Amino acid sequence: MANYGLIGRLQAQPGKGNELAEILLEASRLMENAAGCKQYMVALLEDDADAVQIIEVWDSREDHDNSLAYPGVKELIGRAMPLLSGSPKTGIHLSVLGGHGLNK
Amino acid sequence: MANYGLIGRLQAQPGKGNELAEILLEASRLMENAAGCKQYMVALLEDDADAVQIIEVWDSREDHDNSLAYPGVKELIGRAMPLLSGSPKTGIHLSVLGGHGLNK
Repeated sequence: MANYGLIGRLQAQPGKGNELAEILLEASRLMENAAGCKQYMVALLEDDADAVQIIEVWDSREDHDNSLAYPGVKELIGRAMPLLSGSPKTGIHLSVLGGHGLNK
Repeated sequence: MANYGLIGRLQAQPGKGNELAEILLEASRLMENAAGCKQYMVALLEDDADAVQIIEVWDSREDHDNSLAYPGVKELIGRAMPLLSGSPKTGIHLSVLGGHGLNK
């Protein structure tokens, strides 16, 4: 069965990209122990250092949705929201078929 | 130093999404031995099974560019092109900061 993938983009206010990315990296460390989390990658766009790209892979969409209630996540979201410029766009939902470099 | 990431999208002709994805999965197996390749993930969009998303992570952009000359890649590109509907869009170039699930 394919895994569930999500490509998300968060736009930070000017000059706040790194600060926002650090919060998402904290979230990625939390997700290491979240059920079904195979990947939680944090990146900045090369042509826009205030655009944070998050690429997640989960065993299932349900595992992803459950992670939003994971201890500490709400607090991180609370710290991230004031750094955003505008509301987050809808992510791209993926059916991950496989490939090199993904945790089994 | 941040790794280089690339999010690419290939639009297949109607009904050819799986066939195209299989070719990209072959490419991902080739990339397992390509210098600097940390990830080559192949997915389909949940709301468009003819849209193939490829998420790559490399030690450097140079490693990625060198991989295009890797044995077998040109042959795979030759098989993929006829399945595309229109030319591939420019990818999203990323500075990958880290996160859970990435090969070290």
